[in-house]
Amino acid sequence: MVSGVTKDWSLHPQLAQDTVPVGDMPLARVLLARDANYPWLILVPRLPGLVELIDLEENAQVQLLGEIAAAARALKTATKCDKLNIAALGNQVPQLHVHVIARRRTDAAWPQPVWGVKPPLAYEEGQQTSLLNSLHQLLKRSGLAGMDR
Amino acid sequence: MVSGVTKDWSLHPQLAQDTVPVGDMPLARVLLARDANYPWLILVPRLPGLVELIDLEENAQVQLLGEIAAAARALKTATKCDKLNIAALGNQVPQLHVHVIARRRTDAAWPQPVWGVKPPLAYEEGQQTSLLNSLHQLLKRSGLAGMDR
Repeated sequence: MVSGVTKDWSLHPQLAQDTVPVGDMPLARVLLARDANYPWLILVPRLPGLVELIDLEENAQVQLLGEIAAAARALKTATKCDKLNIAALGNQVPQLHVHVIARRRTDAAWPQPVWGVKPPLAYEEGQQTSLLNSLHQLLKRSGLAGMDR
Repeated sequence: MVSGVTKDWSLHPQLAQDTVPVGDMPLARVLLARDANYPWLILVPRLPGLVELIDLEENAQVQLLGEIAAAARALKTATKCDKLNIAALGNQVPQLHVHVIARRRTDAAWPQPVWGVKPPLAYEEGQQTSLLNSLHQLLKRSGLAGMDR
């Protein structure tokens, strides 16, 4: 278990604005980007003051990796995507966050990375609720404790 | 130790063409991109048939994470960069590879991701040799066995 989770932590307002919550894994909050161009999760470790992946202690890095892998498997199962893109960039929003994006050879940006290519496309409400529910169930079943929401 | 390393493995020709080798860590080959716009490492696990991070078994994922963290620390020390970008995309070259890129607020693509923004800029020979030597020494000192070249 990683100590200090949620203590003095709050989600960066830009990430809050651009996403809807899927649930909390033991370390990271899992968010779904409000962009129907690509099913797109963002994982944010709930520890204050993190900018770089290497700011995390080693056991927390390993925990985050397990949660990234669980999120990637859930997203792949839910979307039957062609490729996963996983990235920690943080050039614009400094709070450490990890993108896990489902890509299709037919999507709006393929084969380029998604950032900056298309303006976000709103989900239809039913589509977003259905994807959120699928992802929440898959992550719960991944064996990672938690997934509170 | 991850079993099967180097067995039946070869580097994708596109990655070979776009980079120069820094050395081998226990799991990954470390490459320096031939692009002086941004000091840019690429880590390629030396196991055949990998496309996604989640294709690796769990212990190999953790080993790769340790090597990514070591590469990131070495790159940050060698370049005194403002930000690290870490990403596994693979939309164009299918062989699993992880980008570890040193970003500066004054670089050619900031704050955008680097992909597709600028054509690669050749290093001056002395500059490239000096960076390669620094990175090799720092990775050797990281305590990860190996770093053969």
